[in-house]
Amino acid sequence: MITIHHLGVSQSDRIVWLMEELGLPYKLEWYDRKDGLAPPEYLALHPAATAPVITDGDLVLAESAAICEYVSQRYGKGRLSVAPDKPNYPDYLYFMHWSNNVQGLFFSKLAANAASGGQPQSANPIMTGVLGRRENGYYRYLEQQLAKNPFAAGPDFTCADVMILFNLTSLSRFGGRTIDDLPNVQAYVDRITKRPAYLKAMAIAGPSATKPSK
Amino acid sequence: MITIHHLGVSQSDRIVWLMEELGLPYKLEWYDRKDGLAPPEYLALHPAATAPVITDGDLVLAESAAICEYVSQRYGKGRLSVAPDKPNYPDYLYFMHWSNNVQGLFFSKLAANAASGGQPQSANPIMTGVLGRRENGYYRYLEQQLAKNPFAAGPDFTCADVMILFNLTSLSRFGGRTIDDLPNVQAYVDRITKRPAYLKAMAIAGPSATKPSK
Repeated sequence: MITIHHLGVSQSDRIVWLMEELGLPYKLEWYDRKDGLAPPEYLALHPAATAPVITDGDLVLAESAAICEYVSQRYGKGRLSVAPDKPNYPDYLYFMHWSNNVQGLFFSKLAANAASGGQPQSANPIMTGVLGRRENGYYRYLEQQLAKNPFAAGPDFTCADVMILFNLTSLSRFGGRTIDDLPNVQAYVDRITKRPAYLKAMAIAGPSATKPSK
Repeated sequence: MITIHHLGVSQSDRIVWLMEELGLPYKLEWYDRKDGLAPPEYLALHPAATAPVITDGDLVLAESAAICEYVSQRYGKGRLSVAPDKPNYPDYLYFMHWSNNVQGLFFSKLAANAASGGQPQSANPIMTGVLGRRENGYYRYLEQQLAKNPFAAGPDFTCADVMILFNLTSLSRFGGRTIDDLPNVQAYVDRITKRPAYLKAMAIAGPSATKPSK
């Protein structure tokens, strides 16, 4: 059975959501943050020291998108993935990378703010302009896609939706770009967050959930 | 035929490398940077305004990793990809995301440096510490994997190698983490950069190549 090593208030909640969507059994190991940071025992799970991490027998696998695809292919018969011969295969591939790319830009803005002591980032307007343009580009493209399709990668709910939702909900609480100007994205978030598997997963491991007592 | 929209001195050179490895035909459209930035006609190719971009009939696809997988599956019979039933499938999935994650941290450092006017980043040691720990974690994990395997994802050359090499060569020229302390990674770079398809691709579209005259 797959063990999800869940870091509290982190994007590892999406792996719980994935398992609930697929109706697969899993064991949840909960790690609380210490002073906002992942505790040493979490960092020791994987050499790259990132969240989420799953273990499956001897396998230790990090990286949300890799975990989603692995679980879908090895345990879900490819459900929630999109096969190469499908017309929306390129969209699926693209949006499986969207979340990490947007988070790279998010961390860049956080780092710039931290380094400037919270002052306006006037030191390098080219850098600020490029970061902002890129972030807006990613969100605008998602808005365009959701004008044509109910889900990120086309007609069906897929791992790509499991990947991107964190950016559209939790990340804005920490200073990520909001979606106030993106009506299709807003409607999408409203729809997706009503899914029973999502509600169950957030109750178990979402940002407001707490470590279960043994 | 696939058209590669190549932005000069950018990671879009890896798509030329991919096509040369697979022995597939392609058309190369070259775009020079203006004052270091992508020109407006490049930014107009895709709503997210990132490089690389390919076009294939009506399809406009951005995102290196998505392009690699799309080309491998649709035109290369899955060559350079790893199938879900293979033992190294999880490694393949993981390293198809490594490059973007490392670049997110790279941009974060650039942004922090720019915002601090080049001063030491003393404003937020927690942020600096987390960024550095994460970047080191990614590189240390690659070093560990290359102690066991000749390629990033195991015994064979794959799209994962096409993805990560840019970070190990070009990115350090712009301030990315160097690999001086990683002997397995150094040996790997030495081996990979001798591949005939790589040498041909770099002569055509690498950072020292120039726009071909018509």
